[in-house]
Amino acid sequence: MANNSFPPALDALVEQFARLPGVGRKSAQRLAFFVLGLPQSEVQSFADALLDAKGQIHRCPVCQNFSEGDGPCSLCASSRRDSSTICVVAEAKDVAALERSQEYRGLYHVLHGVISPMNHIGPDDLAVKELLERVSGGGIKEVIMATNPDTEGEATAMYLSRLLKPFGVTVTRLAYGVPVGGHLEFADDATLMRALEGRREM
Amino acid sequence: MANNSFPPALDALVEQFARLPGVGRKSAQRLAFFVLGLPQSEVQSFADALLDAKGQIHRCPVCQNFSEGDGPCSLCASSRRDSSTICVVAEAKDVAALERSQEYRGLYHVLHGVISPMNHIGPDDLAVKELLERVSGGGIKEVIMATNPDTEGEATAMYLSRLLKPFGVTVTRLAYGVPVGGHLEFADDATLMRALEGRREM
Repeated sequence: MANNSFPPALDALVEQFARLPGVGRKSAQRLAFFVLGLPQSEVQSFADALLDAKGQIHRCPVCQNFSEGDGPCSLCASSRRDSSTICVVAEAKDVAALERSQEYRGLYHVLHGVISPMNHIGPDDLAVKELLERVSGGGIKEVIMATNPDTEGEATAMYLSRLLKPFGVTVTRLAYGVPVGGHLEFADDATLMRALEGRREM
Repeated sequence: MANNSFPPALDALVEQFARLPGVGRKSAQRLAFFVLGLPQSEVQSFADALLDAKGQIHRCPVCQNFSEGDGPCSLCASSRRDSSTICVVAEAKDVAALERSQEYRGLYHVLHGVISPMNHIGPDDLAVKELLERVSGGGIKEVIMATNPDTEGEATAMYLSRLLKPFGVTVTRLAYGVPVGGHLEFADDATLMRALEGRREM
């Protein structure tokens, strides 16, 4: 142990935490100290959870969502879902959010990111090829673009829309408007404008 | 897999991350997805680092600092350190900070926290008993209180000072004042007051 440092095994753990996104060196130290204070059995559980998740979780070969096992995920395999509709989302957590609404009965496609030239993420880094294969395979009537309503989400939706239209499918986008339960006074101008544009007869 | 959730192995990993201090559920999801995107070998390294740190790092039986192996740490074992002076710090990272200054040549004592009634942390939760044993063992001339200059650090220093003085040792506190390289205009009133009180002839 160098006198001005931690023991190597502690340093190594700090390094591992510091590699995680959004975790700086100070936070990594705090997390490492926290782990040292845990009982041995809980540290073992943490290590097991890491290896289990990595070993057991794969991408569903159809929708690319995270799934256990090798075959299609439970959503893609379900006979109760409308397989003619695909909802395209950026991340697996967006599937969880949409499923919580219990409104959508079609299938999903997880891109695992959005096109972001700033971060050097192009279509080849996303599950775009797999989406085109699904749509070109036939049987799809509608593709709903449910990427985030921000700049990169918009650009990704526009890009995919242009790629998909030649296949003769309907490509739609989530509605914009004021959030349910929100207050008009807190809505930004762009949202209010979109909410007015999209107004519907009562 | 419940339709509105993640696969169990992924959920389990999210749970593990969410237990870490300062990591909320959303961050835990992000960290878990990050881990899924790592190569198998790097996830293995992370798991190994957790188990290695927990397995190899113990508290030094003398100063209570984190150390590899069972005997006294390299600082406590060193013949080049002044064993008549103990610098009491709250956390192991404070030892690293003081060692970086290359000014102090005595030994340390790591409390692993400060007295904090708000968080239900009392003297029995800290390495206070071990400090009293060291000092009562004799051979100690000075104990420097180097807990943080905040309310809890002050209270802990005061508490320990009262416990230690009956042993006939000199108990000192780190000097307060304006930080080197700082600007007077940004120093708070309490710091300026302390800096004036502690002024020294040039």
